[in-house]
Amino acid sequence: ADIVVLPGDGIGPEVTTAAVDVLQAVAQRFGHRFSLHEHLIGGAAIDATGKPLPDDTLAAARDADAVLLGAVGGPKWSDPNASVRPEQGLLAIRKALGVYANLRPTKPHPAAMGASPIKPHLLAGVDLLVVRELTGGIYFGERTRTAESASDLCTYTVPEIERVVRRACLLARGRRGHVTSVDKANVLETSRLWRDVASRIARDEFPDIVIEHQLVDSMAMHLLSKPRAYDVIVTENMFGDILTDEASMLAGSLGLLPSASLGEGCVGMYEPIHGSAPDIAGKGIANPYGTILSAALLLRYSLGLSQEAACIEQAVDDALDAGVFTADLASDGTAVSTREAAAAVL
Amino acid sequence: ADIVVLPGDGIGPEVTTAAVDVLQAVAQRFGHRFSLHEHLIGGAAIDATGKPLPDDTLAAARDADAVLLGAVGGPKWSDPNASVRPEQGLLAIRKALGVYANLRPTKPHPAAMGASPIKPHLLAGVDLLVVRELTGGIYFGERTRTAESASDLCTYTVPEIERVVRRACLLARGRRGHVTSVDKANVLETSRLWRDVASRIARDEFPDIVIEHQLVDSMAMHLLSKPRAYDVIVTENMFGDILTDEASMLAGSLGLLPSASLGEGCVGMYEPIHGSAPDIAGKGIANPYGTILSAALLLRYSLGLSQEAACIEQAVDDALDAGVFTADLASDGTAVSTREAAAAVL
Ligand SMILES: CC(C)[C@H](C(=O)O)[C@@H](O)C(=O)O
Ligand SMILES: CC(C)[C@H](C(=O)O)[C@@H](O)C(=O)O
Repeated sequence: ADIVVLPGDGIGPEVTTAAVDVLQAVAQRFGHRFSLHEHLIGGAAIDATGKPLPDDTLAAARDADAVLLGAVGGPKWSDPNASVRPEQGLLAIRKALGVYANLRPTKPHPAAMGASPIKPHLLAGVDLLVVRELTGGIYFGERTRTAESASDLCTYTVPEIERVVRRACLLARGRRGHVTSVDKANVLETSRLWRDVASRIARDEFPDIVIEHQLVDSMAMHLLSKPRAYDVIVTENMFGDILTDEASMLAGSLGLLPSASLGEGCVGMYEPIHGSAPDIAGKGIANPYGTILSAALLLRYSLGLSQEAACIEQAVDDALDAGVFTADLASDGTAVSTREAAAAVL
Repeated sequence: ADIVVLPGDGIGPEVTTAAVDVLQAVAQRFGHRFSLHEHLIGGAAIDATGKPLPDDTLAAARDADAVLLGAVGGPKWSDPNASVRPEQGLLAIRKALGVYANLRPTKPHPAAMGASPIKPHLLAGVDLLVVRELTGGIYFGERTRTAESASDLCTYTVPEIERVVRRACLLARGRRGHVTSVDKANVLETSRLWRDVASRIARDEFPDIVIEHQLVDSMAMHLLSKPRAYDVIVTENMFGDILTDEASMLAGSLGLLPSASLGEGCVGMYEPIHGSAPDIAGKGIANPYGTILSAALLLRYSLGLSQEAACIEQAVDDALDAGVFTADLASDGTAVSTREAAAAVL
């Protein structure tokens, strides 16, 4: 299998190195051959080529079986008025690969609950999967900017909504059969379309699934007050961005959470949901678990290797059980380095 | 002083009745004359007149010193494809009165911390004021809808951003001098304009204020993991909607939280941040504290009666200290009714 690795910026290289080591260990133990190739994206790509998504990176990603990405961005490239920005590379590759469904599971690990701001009795039994629409909405609409004003256009088409809701319903079938669709239908036209389409898809194609609709503001509350009440949550791009960062607090740290971005076709893209964390970059202390768990999702969804995926997930669970915590999770002087955490998983 | 009362829908009438009783008690005790007039808005107005914001309601509000609003909306009027909706009345009156700055304070009361999903040690000392832009952005942009797609336009002009950031900085001067401006400047053009303008206003006009910029997704996390780190938070309309509902969880219940919507001119509008709660409407069990505290903000900001405002706030504090909790806050069979809670404040 051909895997393209895009370390990106900040802690990206550190965490992808850890995940690559784990993939290689899996290959050895289970007798697979993974051919891994690194390419540039984000700020690192701007520095080297002037472009946040160089042509050969995109070409390699298109030809690969899967893409593993670290993170992009950082203060060096964050002048908001710069004409090229690292984030453009990330948005462009998501769009080019057509990975419209971004799966962000959150299942608080008992050992990490101490690091969560949420009371433990609310966390027991929480098992959420947010399916974030990833290639539409206000992230990809027309933008304008003059001296006096700026605008961003949010657009959704019926097929864009249908396919991501369908994906969410299919995923719910393999879980508890419950989908919560999140919108702001009392104000936005795109949300009213979203709600109409989501209701129709669920009714016509998934009579076995229970679908419920929530306004995004209420959802931001209920996610904290009764997180156990949810199974699969499906929502548009921007709401998904905000709600998944919020949901990460249920798990104790953003650093623990993986994601899988899937399209209709073959190539999936896998990345931790954390960012490039410039404040700790290069120090060797970043949490590698989110990226390692993203590699597990890669094995499951793009390579069909579910046993191998489960094996990685178990190893991360065991490391957490054993109290192998990086600084984001450790409460006192007991934090381990990125390398040590990866070694525990290996 | 002339106060227009807009009970609206659902629990709106119940909670505004409680707040009106409190205002009348204040008038009596301090020797003021408040002339209170009720008008229709939202679903109730649609039922009676066909319009969510009847002309005479708007005319009365414009002529008043202040407006006290309950809540609007409910399942009866929530067909997303209806041509008139209760929420349109609320958006229209905010726009018509020009109340561009929506102040939403959150200061968890010790007695209510038990109802919060957040661990108590994180809540001690939290004292936040979110200033939400209320008359611009995607809430008021052009919308389109066809059989195949829908769109919403988010626009901000420089003056719209300037005035709300200025208001936030002025408010921070009377507090801890710290402003956090929230945007999504790594993706949105309106956010890049927002960040530019906010930086400039703070630098040129408020050298005494410390301003910091946060991305909305990170903010959704940090609001939970380190709520004490924030003083005044200023943000655009939609982000403010989501973040304040999230922040309400710090206080234990949405039902406790008041808001003040202010413009350049005279008329301020005051409303609890909760909605119409159709599930409990008419049962007499809604939490009236958010509306009563909104009446206190009305006295402070629109009538200049800060002593009277403080007196109401103290009375609510005392009621909470005494454990007078409505169902949203009470953990077992000890919940009081709306009337009983109001009586405790009186
Ligand atoms: C870096 C940024 C463009 C990105 C996003 O908003 O999608 C990130 O926050 C994420 O959630 O993957
Ligand atoms: C009812 C709705 C239009 C409103 C909003 O989104 O502004 C409400 O959620 C609020 O926060 O006041």
